[in-house]
Amino acid sequence: MAPEKNSSDLVLLDFWVSPFGQRVRIALAEKSLPYEYVEEDLAGKSDRLLQSNPVHKKTPVLLHGGKPVNESLIIVQYLEEAFPDTPSLLPADPYARAQARFWADYVDKKVYDCGARLWKLKGEPQAQARAEMLEILKTLETELGDKEFFGGEHGFGFVDAAFAPFTSWFQSYEKLGEFKVAEVAPKIAAWADRVGKRESVAKSLYSPDKVYDFIGVLKKKYGIE
Amino acid sequence: MAPEKNSSDLVLLDFWVSPFGQRVRIALAEKSLPYEYVEEDLAGKSDRLLQSNPVHKKTPVLLHGGKPVNESLIIVQYLEEAFPDTPSLLPADPYARAQARFWADYVDKKVYDCGARLWKLKGEPQAQARAEMLEILKTLETELGDKEFFGGEHGFGFVDAAFAPFTSWFQSYEKLGEFKVAEVAPKIAAWADRVGKRESVAKSLYSPDKVYDFIGVLKKKYGIE
Repeated sequence: MAPEKNSSDLVLLDFWVSPFGQRVRIALAEKSLPYEYVEEDLAGKSDRLLQSNPVHKKTPVLLHGGKPVNESLIIVQYLEEAFPDTPSLLPADPYARAQARFWADYVDKKVYDCGARLWKLKGEPQAQARAEMLEILKTLETELGDKEFFGGEHGFGFVDAAFAPFTSWFQSYEKLGEFKVAEVAPKIAAWADRVGKRESVAKSLYSPDKVYDFIGVLKKKYGIE
Repeated sequence: MAPEKNSSDLVLLDFWVSPFGQRVRIALAEKSLPYEYVEEDLAGKSDRLLQSNPVHKKTPVLLHGGKPVNESLIIVQYLEEAFPDTPSLLPADPYARAQARFWADYVDKKVYDCGARLWKLKGEPQAQARAEMLEILKTLETELGDKEFFGGEHGFGFVDAAFAPFTSWFQSYEKLGEFKVAEVAPKIAAWADRVGKRESVAKSLYSPDKVYDFIGVLKKKYGIE
């Protein structure tokens, strides 16, 4: 079979539970771009990873014809521009694109770090992280409003791909922070159900139980009781 | 006179010494887009600022026809897409665009925060910030290499606009960290001289002495001796 859409030489260096890698997997699936998936051992990173991302030394890295692209949202935008004939995640209108970039950036800056503080910290600092997580969920709830997806008229889009991986972390955040997403941000909870049924998302994520177990592994690694 | 390039309704809410706002001013100047500049009082932010950026409550905000765009690198990309007939800062090639986004993001994540630690901290934590700043400068030096601008063949570009504002902070970093950019990263020092002579940059920045005085104001505000 002939190489499809110049994408036969796409390789993704990734780590199974990484919400950042999952964004890229979701984008690749939305675009029906075939690629080779390579699981990295974060305790013993490959030479290919270290040489492809010498600055941050982190997954995900997308190699296209051997040339590396780093940072998940930059990789997704690269896929938009390198494969313009595939379904787009960003809308066409410049203002709507800026808004999508703003909210993806908001998710990028806030959710993972705040979630990590939920399992790393105790007492008052953890309570602060919990309060911040509720605030983040409410802010995203306001932005989502009554739309089916963050992409609005465009449908499932850039912000949906950026935030969807964290839906598999919701159960962990709920246990650690003793709250319910469905109570704090019911529209986000309903959106999480919707995106979870989408094929691109379903095949890129792992079960909430596996994510919770993984947090246990992280706690052990960092010596947190 | 007829509105020029649909930009007669551009308003920038900004703060004079902000390197983030200066990026936007540089981009607007490179594109010869006229705009109304509005100086914000960060101790008493305007209702317009708070309503335009309710999430981060920060400058810069670009209003286009009254509609706000936030976050400096997102604003610059918006200008690229909303005014496609003006000189571009991002190259046309998708891979080169991803690389430009990567390095602008690197500057975004590293330089300002590390610089702030130079004046906020003392002793060992400050020494760590100093070591990190030298590492950042050397990393950027390696990326610049023998190119005239970070934009390479494209000329002055996205990374140049993102990093140029910090050249007016170099003298402060040098005083606080007791090092010389010209010794640590001579190509970056030469690049700083080159971009400083560029009209778009020269008219957007303030003198290194004014920046150093401003850091003194910040130290006083935060009660740092």
